[in-house]
Amino acid sequence: MRATIMHGAGDVRIESVPDAQLIEPSDAVVRVTVASICGSDLWPYGSMEPSETGQSMGHEAIGVVEAVGADVQTIKTGQLVIMPFAFSDGTCEFCHEGLQTECIHAGFFGNNGVNGAQAEALRIPYADGTLYPIGTGEDDALLASLLTLSDVMGTGHHAAVHADVGPGKIAAVVGDGAVGLCAVIAAKRLGAEQIIILGRHPDRTDLAREFGAIDVVAERGDAAVERVRELTGGLGAHSVLECVGHGASMGTAVGIARPGGAIGRVGVPQEETLPGSKTAFYANLTVGGGPAPARAYIDELLPDVLEGRINPGRVLDRTVDLDGVPDGYRAMADRDAIKVMVRP
Amino acid sequence: MRATIMHGAGDVRIESVPDAQLIEPSDAVVRVTVASICGSDLWPYGSMEPSETGQSMGHEAIGVVEAVGADVQTIKTGQLVIMPFAFSDGTCEFCHEGLQTECIHAGFFGNNGVNGAQAEALRIPYADGTLYPIGTGEDDALLASLLTLSDVMGTGHHAAVHADVGPGKIAAVVGDGAVGLCAVIAAKRLGAEQIIILGRHPDRTDLAREFGAIDVVAERGDAAVERVRELTGGLGAHSVLECVGHGASMGTAVGIARPGGAIGRVGVPQEETLPGSKTAFYANLTVGGGPAPARAYIDELLPDVLEGRINPGRVLDRTVDLDGVPDGYRAMADRDAIKVMVRP
Repeated sequence: MRATIMHGAGDVRIESVPDAQLIEPSDAVVRVTVASICGSDLWPYGSMEPSETGQSMGHEAIGVVEAVGADVQTIKTGQLVIMPFAFSDGTCEFCHEGLQTECIHAGFFGNNGVNGAQAEALRIPYADGTLYPIGTGEDDALLASLLTLSDVMGTGHHAAVHADVGPGKIAAVVGDGAVGLCAVIAAKRLGAEQIIILGRHPDRTDLAREFGAIDVVAERGDAAVERVRELTGGLGAHSVLECVGHGASMGTAVGIARPGGAIGRVGVPQEETLPGSKTAFYANLTVGGGPAPARAYIDELLPDVLEGRINPGRVLDRTVDLDGVPDGYRAMADRDAIKVMVRP
Repeated sequence: MRATIMHGAGDVRIESVPDAQLIEPSDAVVRVTVASICGSDLWPYGSMEPSETGQSMGHEAIGVVEAVGADVQTIKTGQLVIMPFAFSDGTCEFCHEGLQTECIHAGFFGNNGVNGAQAEALRIPYADGTLYPIGTGEDDALLASLLTLSDVMGTGHHAAVHADVGPGKIAAVVGDGAVGLCAVIAAKRLGAEQIIILGRHPDRTDLAREFGAIDVVAERGDAAVERVRELTGGLGAHSVLECVGHGASMGTAVGIARPGGAIGRVGVPQEETLPGSKTAFYANLTVGGGPAPARAYIDELLPDVLEGRINPGRVLDRTVDLDGVPDGYRAMADRDAIKVMVRP
């Protein structure tokens, strides 16, 4: 079968690899209907050291179950399933708490010795705990939005939850990538009174406005902090949703938060330290977040997708086949596309 | 009158200064009944550059109101009052939210151009918003515990609140100073099932056990992390109360937290960055805290003090008069005393 392998910065190849197959009795094999390229895939695309063996890519997918192992109880062959970006056993105390990304057996697809989803098919560890069956057929109109539940929409929601978004509050979203845009949807959905997006790509910030953002701040650094303070009566935003992961963007997040406010961070951190420790302390800020338990959030978000109340699939503004994946990476890296869907 | 002035590291002097007096119509003047030396006073005691003018010291006190300005409405001459370490106007939206340390007019006694409380008397800005009248007489048995409500007991409680302590949870307290000990009281009071204190001073950790700590971890760094994991079934503590403020202790706090757990930080941060950003992210930790709104917490904590359910005054294990203050600093810096009470 064919799959996406990254061999270094800017070097993405479609290669023939052994067919996906069951290894453990709790596994399933899923044939990929749609997958996507994630903003976090751009980190290695920008910096990966050359590698002969390469890295299997992709952690967001919807697919059809093709085979299940002997111990799989609830997942059945032929089901259409959402594959959250992390696998989880479904039985440990973290899974029971709805924090599947901290499962004692958790791992991320495309890492931890498990293949990625930008491929024709892939093996799913802990199929019962990992996969989320969906009842719909392969309805093209909904597929893109359903696909975002595997990662970016759940991740935007996680930012909103940790930023303590709620009615009457001002929410500021740092970053206008697919996660930032989904974070706008999540903030709106949770009742934010005013939503500010910090971003400088008009096509993306225009979409953010359609999703509910009132204000767009294109400035960066101190100028961004000053502008957000102007827009918030001088005090800053109650809820800051950090959707980038750079130290600089975390510094901005700290700077624009209202005293006593909360920062939900979902951008994959690129540095070992967090800036603004003293500022955050003296402002009594709370900083939380991490890899979103997308699996848990599907329960809450799926009805809104199915009934059309939210349409996060709009962030997927380009579709490619497997041969088009390398160009899809280039398009996202060049900001020609917000997010690329892959139909193998 | 006489007051405590720090002129540099290790250089604390008792000096004659102008009598405290009303300046603004919202001021009061309070004659100090008891004050105390705070662990945070030890930061400048260890590192302050020599200063001819010096720094007025002290931010924890109980006293008697001696005079009030024309605009003071609720505070009356002759009242016994707790003076929280921060002054606050009592009218802004932060004060109404119970976050007086973020008041738009907030300041810390001994800073911001306001004199300190290790003195015979001091001026209180925004007397109505700042001072907390207490009905008791100057009952010596309760005075020490009441004094801790001006800072350390409220600060320990703030750590517990931000660490999300609750029934059934494991709480770990980093630091065995007066705040750490009060954090143990707070964790016990909020229902923690198991309390671990990280500290290496047996007199202090013995007191922590009396306050409710089950386990004492004297190790530091990686060894401390390993030991806490042993004590917590390998997973770490749900709630970590950081009561030191060093980067190293924050690193330990991140290392001992259970995935999905919360760190309440109240140790005054000594570095500009927080360590462990990636670890905290991948473990989905929440980090919150800052200067405690001690004023707000008195409402909740006072009944427990008055009725003897908590006895945080036990952290005050030495009493000096004003002349004894320099030696009190030395005793705390040398760990000869946990916390020193001052009777001017």
